[in-house]
Amino acid sequence: MKVRVYYEDTDVGGVVYYANYLKFCERARSNIFFEKGMSPHNSDEFFVVKHVEADYIKSAVFADELEITCELIEKRAASITMYQEVLRDGEVLFTGKFKLAYLKDFKPHRIPKELINVFS
Amino acid sequence: MKVRVYYEDTDVGGVVYYANYLKFCERARSNIFFEKGMSPHNSDEFFVVKHVEADYIKSAVFADELEITCELIEKRAASITMYQEVLRDGEVLFTGKFKLAYLKDFKPHRIPKELINVFS
Amino acid sequence: MKVRVYYEDTDVGGVVYYANYLKFCERARSNIFFEKGMSPHNSDEFFVVKHVEADYIKSAVFADELEITCELIEKRAASITMYQEVLRDGEVLFTGKFKLAYLKDFKPHRIPKELINVFS
Amino acid sequence: MKVRVYYEDTDVGGVVYYANYLKFCERARSNIFFEKGMSPHNSDEFFVVKHVEADYIKSAVFADELEITCELIEKRAASITMYQEVLRDGEVLFTGKFKLAYLKDFKPHRIPKELINVFS
Repeated sequence: MKVRVYYEDTDVGGVVYYANYLKFCERARSNIFFEKGMSPHNSDEFFVVKHVEADYIKSAVFADELEITCELIEKRAASITMYQEVLRDGEVLFTGKFKLAYLKDFKPHRIPKELINVFS
Repeated sequence: MKVRVYYEDTDVGGVVYYANYLKFCERARSNIFFEKGMSPHNSDEFFVVKHVEADYIKSAVFADELEITCELIEKRAASITMYQEVLRDGEVLFTGKFKLAYLKDFKPHRIPKELINVFS
Repeated sequence: MKVRVYYEDTDVGGVVYYANYLKFCERARSNIFFEKGMSPHNSDEFFVVKHVEADYIKSAVFADELEITCELIEKRAASITMYQEVLRDGEVLFTGKFKLAYLKDFKPHRIPKELINVFS
Repeated sequence: MKVRVYYEDTDVGGVVYYANYLKFCERARSNIFFEKGMSPHNSDEFFVVKHVEADYIKSAVFADELEITCELIEKRAASITMYQEVLRDGEVLFTGKFKLAYLKDFKPHRIPKELINVFS
């Protein structure tokens, strides 16, 4: 998935604000579902992030065209873990591991088959 | 209401990103209710912005302490209009007029008495 | 320009947060330059928004695919005014008029020819 | 440091968007300096986040009043590590470990004495 860096993503340091890499990664995760005509969010059922481990290697700046990757590295009944990278011209700027739990009515719930099948 | 300018509010121009003045103003509007122990948002009933007119006079920068004012200038059955200013040390940086409609189930609805009373 | 609505754009009302339409419009304005291999921002020279008039007609929601239009309606030596719409499936959700001033060292400055030519 | 949850912080799931806890933590870190009349950002010198480990335990919602803590757990010549919690009524909703490097002209640099003294 491609992401362009706009004003809203940058801060006074001249670089992308650190929390915004998490936005980029979330867009890429949602896109996996959108591309199959599905949604990761269905009224009272959706994924929530439970754990993040992130490394900031180099800074993205205004006007950059970034690529966001998304790889499933663990699949459980009610949670998944993704490894994601943010790259610019093939160079890795950011890596993150995101554990997501599936909730129904705000309680952990088995991930529906049609959602988990998206990853295969 | 006082608002501090953090990294998240700024952009690569070194100033507060233009959409974020609208965030500051929304905080001040919500605060009117919070200060009375009320909420502007109750499940399927809430205000939505219908019209904005905004003037950007001077730029706020990182670390600024801003004051946000909020004045009711029109009160109708299902909508209100607020005039708001963003100031730094008494100097006006931004002014905005915000028309808000009250919705119930996404349809225009009479503003409940307990909410409208907050302004008197 | 196409924009997808992600979690970050929505709020607890289930709709796109009102300030985020301004983000979408800014992305479309910057894109005019990016598409020509140019940048609207060059170290100490850039556009700032001076005036906004915005109408919120219908709400965008999570997963929506929006189209953002951008039309130059006034061109002066040191400022331009754009009219922009946010549409979903051809239906207008939002309209905005944005007056932008060009600054150099934070002072009004004649818009460089190569930038203004982008609009012709 | 106290933080109120506004519309801008929430998403369609009815909870605070996951990247926004990082914003809250950044505000608390900057506040450490602001409270001493200092700034963590001085033209070409500032901190950048290098590593984040975050656990999302419970969700914050609209109107919540949160408390953000900030504890220095490692101090090196050119980097510091902070442990931070986000609490609601004494209950921990989020914990994060943030490693920050000090940069001058975008290169690692010894943290100035007057900044590091803030933590003692």
